[in-house]
Amino acid sequence: MVNTSLAGVIRAALESGRFRRVLGMLHGIEGLLADDLVDLAAQPASFLERLAQTPSAALGSCRYKLQPDDPERALEVLRRHEAGVFIYIGGNDSADTAHRVARAARTASYDLAVLGVPKTIDNDLPETDHCPGYGSAARFLALATRWVGADTRAMRRTDPVRIIEVMGRHAGWLAAASALGREQEGDAPHVVLVPERPLALETILAAVQSAYRASGFAVVVLCENQPDETGAVLGARGGPRYVDPFGHAYYDSPGLYLATQVQERLGLRARYDKPGALQKTFMAAASSVDLEEAERCGRAAVELALGGHSDEMVILLRDDGPHYHCRTGAAPLEVIANRQKRLPEAFIRPDGLGPSAAFLDYARPLIGEPLPLLARLDPSARA
Amino acid sequence: MVNTSLAGVIRAALESGRFRRVLGMLHGIEGLLADDLVDLAAQPASFLERLAQTPSAALGSCRYKLQPDDPERALEVLRRHEAGVFIYIGGNDSADTAHRVARAARTASYDLAVLGVPKTIDNDLPETDHCPGYGSAARFLALATRWVGADTRAMRRTDPVRIIEVMGRHAGWLAAASALGREQEGDAPHVVLVPERPLALETILAAVQSAYRASGFAVVVLCENQPDETGAVLGARGGPRYVDPFGHAYYDSPGLYLATQVQERLGLRARYDKPGALQKTFMAAASSVDLEEAERCGRAAVELALGGHSDEMVILLRDDGPHYHCRTGAAPLEVIANRQKRLPEAFIRPDGLGPSAAFLDYARPLIGEPLPLLARLDPSARA
Repeated sequence: MVNTSLAGVIRAALESGRFRRVLGMLHGIEGLLADDLVDLAAQPASFLERLAQTPSAALGSCRYKLQPDDPERALEVLRRHEAGVFIYIGGNDSADTAHRVARAARTASYDLAVLGVPKTIDNDLPETDHCPGYGSAARFLALATRWVGADTRAMRRTDPVRIIEVMGRHAGWLAAASALGREQEGDAPHVVLVPERPLALETILAAVQSAYRASGFAVVVLCENQPDETGAVLGARGGPRYVDPFGHAYYDSPGLYLATQVQERLGLRARYDKPGALQKTFMAAASSVDLEEAERCGRAAVELALGGHSDEMVILLRDDGPHYHCRTGAAPLEVIANRQKRLPEAFIRPDGLGPSAAFLDYARPLIGEPLPLLARLDPSARA
Repeated sequence: MVNTSLAGVIRAALESGRFRRVLGMLHGIEGLLADDLVDLAAQPASFLERLAQTPSAALGSCRYKLQPDDPERALEVLRRHEAGVFIYIGGNDSADTAHRVARAARTASYDLAVLGVPKTIDNDLPETDHCPGYGSAARFLALATRWVGADTRAMRRTDPVRIIEVMGRHAGWLAAASALGREQEGDAPHVVLVPERPLALETILAAVQSAYRASGFAVVVLCENQPDETGAVLGARGGPRYVDPFGHAYYDSPGLYLATQVQERLGLRARYDKPGALQKTFMAAASSVDLEEAERCGRAAVELALGGHSDEMVILLRDDGPHYHCRTGAAPLEVIANRQKRLPEAFIRPDGLGPSAAFLDYARPLIGEPLPLLARLDPSARA
C-alpha cells in the first residue's frame, strides 16, 4: 500500500496547485542522500494509473539507518531542490528517519514540513487505530486460512496437519488475522501462535493433538519468530541466522521445525506453507477499505503540511458508532518511532492459543467485503 | 476445480432428467467401499451455489490404492444403490482407480458407465491439451511471481534474491507458468528450474549470479523435488522424508537449501517463499477460462455416460485458429492412468533455465484475463 499512499500524495499535491514539483526519492532516504530523485509529475500517465494495482514500493525501499552526518546532508539536497515538504511512508524505522530530518531542519531553521505516512502490514505502530497495508495482508491471510483449511479438511485422512508460517517479527497482528477466516466452530485456524505469548513446544503439540481429535484435522498459524517458553525462537536456540542494520533478527523456520515435530512426536503428517512476500503483495486479495484509507492517508499528509504541521505522522482514528469509519489525525513522529504496538492482552485468548472475540471485532471491518463462504455438505443427507 | 467439475456433473445429471438420484462418495473410493455416500440432490441450495467458490474437494479426497478385492466390493455397493454411472474426478491415480472399477464391471457383466474427469494442477495427464485446475494454479503463480518480483526489485539493495518453491513433483508445468508473470526483459522470474532438467548446484548459482548482475535482483522459481545433476533432490541426497502409499516421495525443501547456498556462496541475502496449498486453493486468483472448462468437463462426463461411453476420461482438445478454444473429447482411462506427461523438450529453453516461447504461447490462454500491469518509473525523468 506504499504505492496507494504515494498516489494519494501525488494527486493531492498536484490538485492543491501549491507545488511546482513533486519529487520522488529512489530507495527512500538513500535516494535523497545520493540526490537520486525522480520527477513524479513527469512520469507517463500509466505510472499514476497503475500505482494502485502495483504492490510493494515503485520507488524502491531501503533499510538504511541514518549516520550522524546524514540529516545535514539530507537538508543540503532538499535545499538544492527548494523542497518545502518532506513526506516519508513506512513504519517505525521510517518514522525515526523522518523525525531526525525534522529535528535537523528545526536546528537549522529550515522551514520544512516533515510528515510521515504509516504503512506496515505488521500493524505495530502506536497511536494509530491500525496501519494502511494491514487490512489487505489480513484479508489475504483470512482467505488463505479459510481455503487452505478447506483443503486440509478434504485431505485429513492422509495429511491432517498444516502449518502456516506468517510475517510479524514481534507482534501477532498478522497471525491473529488468520482467525477471520474461521466461518464455523471447528474450522481453521485451530491454533494461532503469537509472539506476545511464548509457549513451550509441548503445549503447542498438545493443542494440535486436541484440535486434531476434535475436528479430524488441524491448521496452525504461527509467526516467523514465534518464541518458545525460554524466549528463544522455536527450534532455533542456536541464535539468529542474520541480523539486519536495524538490529532485526532473522531465524530459521519455526514452522518447518514444528511440522517435523508434529510428524515425529504425534505421528501426524504435517505440511508446511510459507506465503512469505505474498502477504504483502497479493493485490488480488487487497481490502477495499485498506486501499481507500491508504490513499486518504497519503492525501492527509499533504493537507497537514499545507496546514503548517511538521514532525508528525498521519494516523487513523476510529469513530464510535455501529458502522466502521476512520478519520485521519496526526501524532508526533518521535512517539511512532520509538514505540511498538504489540497485541494487547484483551486481544489474546486466556490460553494464549488464539485471538479473542474483541480482536475479531476490531479487525473484521479492516478486511473489506465479507469473505466468500465455503460449500458445506449436510451430513444428515446420507444416501 | 474438483468442486467446479462436481457442480457440472450434478447440474448436467439433474437437468438430463435421466437419473433418480445423484450420490457423492465421501473421500473418493474410500467412501464407496465403506458405503459412505451422500445424496447430492438433497443438499441445501447453498451447497451447489457455493461449490464454484470453494477450493479443494467438498466431498473429501483420498490417497488410497485399490487392493485386489476392492473393485468387487465397489461393485457390490454400486449395485445396492442401483448405480448406472460412476464418475471419478482426479489425476493419474484416480484414472487408475476408475479403470479398475470399469474392468471389474465388464468382467461381472454389470452395465456401468465409468467416466473420469481430469483434475490436477500439475497438468501432467496425457491425451488432454491441459487439465482443469492447471489454469488457475498457473494464474496464481504468474501473479505471485510478478508481484513478488516487484517487491524483490524494490528491496534489491538489502534482499536481492528470492526463491519461490512451487508444486509439481515430476513435471515442471507449474514452475514454467511463473514465467507468464514476466512483463518485460529483466523482470522476474529470472531462473526457472524444472524437474525435466536436472542441474548442478554450481550451474544454478551461476545463473542466479548472472541474473543479479544484469537486473540487480534475482527471482528463482523451482519445483519441490528439483533434482541436481545426480538425480537426487537438491540438498537432499540422504533420500526422501516420506513416501506415500502411491510411492510418491516427499523431500526436505530444496528451496530453503538453495536460499542458504545463495547466501553462503554468493554472499547475497536470499528470502524463501513456499506458497504450498495456496497454489491449488486461492480462488481469488482463479482463471475464468479454467472455471468454465472445469464445469464443462464435469457436464461432458454425464453426456458421455448417457451416450454409452465407459472406461474413458474426458479430455480437452484445442482447436486450431487464431482464437483459443477447446472442445471436450474422450480417451481411454487406462492410457491416462499409466502415463505421465512431462514438459516436452520444445517447451524448455536450450539452457534448461526456463520455459520456451512455445510454452508461453501454449499456457497464456489458460490463465484467463490479462494480468494487471506494474507501474514503472521512467528512469529518464530524473529531477
